[in-house]
Amino acid sequence: MAVNFPSIDPAALHPVAGVTLGWAEANIRKPNRKDVLVIRVDEGASVAGVFTQNRFCAAPVTVCREHLAAAKGIRALVVNTGNANAGTGEPGMAHARETCAELARLAGFDAQQILPFSTGVILEPLPIDRLKAGLPAALANQQAAHWFDAAQAIMTTDTLPKASSRQVTIDGHVVTLSGISKGAGMIRPNMATMLGFLAFDAKVAQPVLDELVKHVADRSFNCITIDGDTSTNDSFILIASGKSSLPAITSTDSPAYVALRDAVTEVAQDLAQLIVRDGEGATKFMTVTVEGGKDAAECRQIAYAIGHSPLVKTAFYASDPNLGRILAAIGYAGVTDLDVGKIDLYLDDVLVAKAGGRNPAYKEEDGQRVMKKSEILIRVVLGRGNATATVWTCDLSHDYVSINADYRS
Amino acid sequence: MAVNFPSIDPAALHPVAGVTLGWAEANIRKPNRKDVLVIRVDEGASVAGVFTQNRFCAAPVTVCREHLAAAKGIRALVVNTGNANAGTGEPGMAHARETCAELARLAGFDAQQILPFSTGVILEPLPIDRLKAGLPAALANQQAAHWFDAAQAIMTTDTLPKASSRQVTIDGHVVTLSGISKGAGMIRPNMATMLGFLAFDAKVAQPVLDELVKHVADRSFNCITIDGDTSTNDSFILIASGKSSLPAITSTDSPAYVALRDAVTEVAQDLAQLIVRDGEGATKFMTVTVEGGKDAAECRQIAYAIGHSPLVKTAFYASDPNLGRILAAIGYAGVTDLDVGKIDLYLDDVLVAKAGGRNPAYKEEDGQRVMKKSEILIRVVLGRGNATATVWTCDLSHDYVSINADYRS
Repeated sequence: MAVNFPSIDPAALHPVAGVTLGWAEANIRKPNRKDVLVIRVDEGASVAGVFTQNRFCAAPVTVCREHLAAAKGIRALVVNTGNANAGTGEPGMAHARETCAELARLAGFDAQQILPFSTGVILEPLPIDRLKAGLPAALANQQAAHWFDAAQAIMTTDTLPKASSRQVTIDGHVVTLSGISKGAGMIRPNMATMLGFLAFDAKVAQPVLDELVKHVADRSFNCITIDGDTSTNDSFILIASGKSSLPAITSTDSPAYVALRDAVTEVAQDLAQLIVRDGEGATKFMTVTVEGGKDAAECRQIAYAIGHSPLVKTAFYASDPNLGRILAAIGYAGVTDLDVGKIDLYLDDVLVAKAGGRNPAYKEEDGQRVMKKSEILIRVVLGRGNATATVWTCDLSHDYVSINADYRS
Repeated sequence: MAVNFPSIDPAALHPVAGVTLGWAEANIRKPNRKDVLVIRVDEGASVAGVFTQNRFCAAPVTVCREHLAAAKGIRALVVNTGNANAGTGEPGMAHARETCAELARLAGFDAQQILPFSTGVILEPLPIDRLKAGLPAALANQQAAHWFDAAQAIMTTDTLPKASSRQVTIDGHVVTLSGISKGAGMIRPNMATMLGFLAFDAKVAQPVLDELVKHVADRSFNCITIDGDTSTNDSFILIASGKSSLPAITSTDSPAYVALRDAVTEVAQDLAQLIVRDGEGATKFMTVTVEGGKDAAECRQIAYAIGHSPLVKTAFYASDPNLGRILAAIGYAGVTDLDVGKIDLYLDDVLVAKAGGRNPAYKEEDGQRVMKKSEILIRVVLGRGNATATVWTCDLSHDYVSINADYRS
């Protein structure tokens, strides 16, 4: 069902010096599938993350925040699928800590040097014994070339593994970036939970990396939506291994920072868009761009209202140019002083609504032609400023309902 | 597909003195169906309304607001289905005014004494000539006993006509109330648009009626959601014909006001719940009650987050007690200082989550037992205050997608 999902060549995913990956089949929820991933990071790397804004955040998210704050130098990430260890109260916290302690014991680290991640069903106890039993195998098959296997190891309702990689030259030094993702979105994910892990070999000072991860998330994983639900477990992690010959980046002003920032953003956007292309039941990939707003916040607000509307999404699923539904979504987005008489709406190159009303020159067959495509640009011009925002989303199909009605069975 | 939808006996819908109803088959969108309704109101009645908060409100909504503000004494309401006359710009405004002018001409009223309503597809020109051509027939078959036919005349994606009626005795005087509704919700309706018209024969001073309509809407049509979309056309109108022998109600302090208020609220809640029971593709009716909040606003915010979550709604459709999804929705509802450690979650009488975690005594089969029912209470206790709020909603099924993917075909 995935929409124009690029075929990913495992060999094209570059190893990142200072980072190795290994998995296990630990029977967390189902047998015979990779469901535990351990990412090892050499000493001296810096690691930063952003996490779900859900107040009901999962135990591993809380432990990640604690361990990043402890600043003892992260040495490993451990991910399990099949169980989110969320809504599990104190026992869940104990399980997340026990996971870190066990991996630390096996690998000779401090528990605070471990970041734990879980994804899957929530409100069910984490099978901690099976998870711990899987860790030795995940440590035993660590390799720098395991990015594709790692992408497979973190899948839940994903139908395809998601990975992206590239090399860029900054100030004459080659920098290698590789990343994996799964799930359905960050600020707006469904319970499949969005996880993203992106490593590169440039050396970046911790405060700069803390800035970078926010900048990148706001331009990638924070710009996608499948169904508007926000997971308890969403996490996006940047790992700067520091093995590249590029001199350390210690400020956000340097041209090297800008070059690295843009390269990381591109990879993160790949990973985020792959999630939408594999959105549950997705048959179409829609880019919603809102221009001419007073500020980016109101543009995002309107873009998300469109991207979340079940009526808009079902209309796109049906290739039905019932485009008034888009105007309705703009109208209820919550921008209270919006002058709808100034709004233009484009579907790709077709001007559908002009100055808040139907464009006299608009013909249904033009809308129909665009709606039939699998990649569609919804462009809204507000005519009240210069700010813009973009959201990537997909349609709402029968399969979305089937997948989520049957998720646990 | 409607959920426990009561069979409505046309004969049980009491005529309301001073109010008559008539319809026409005007081929607005499809042939051979009632698609125009005219409600006539005798001189001396007071009329009040609340309307959609959508910035892209339809032309008729704008005209309704103008004509109510003109305060010339409303004498008739005219409703068409099949076309919402929304997103139609200036021509749409002209069509709404022309509709009122034509009805005024035919009935001998002032155009400002007419309230126009439209529901159906938006962004398409209103077929004004067919609408005007239908008005004489709608005026010709005016009868006080036509409430059931009127309910049929305003249906769009509704599968069943929606009406409610009762008589109450206030200070020894009988007061008769009858109402009709269609569509899917007021603040959160889908594009089927919610319309509600409720008439009674008590005499109520205009400022009191203006208060009453807001009070009632906030406890009925503003408490339902199907898919979180907000229509451009939603309207709820109260008609006080003043024909009852009950002395005029001129203040909100009188016991008579309270008695009338509660009777009107009950009828409006009937009409609102009928909309949810007939929600597009609905197979289950869920009452979401949030208790123990600091204020009603945060309780509503959380109740709506649960009621809107496609993941919660698909889980109920599947009778799958994947109840962590409810905790997740509570967590992302946007109550930033929420202490999830204090939250209890009940499904009917089953305590699922206690103090933010799974209730140790909770058994999946207990959740399963409740999930299989067609009427389910989702009860959240926040443990941070005394405020409460209730939202009525339904599940999200394959048929919801089918209906909305095919709505215009």
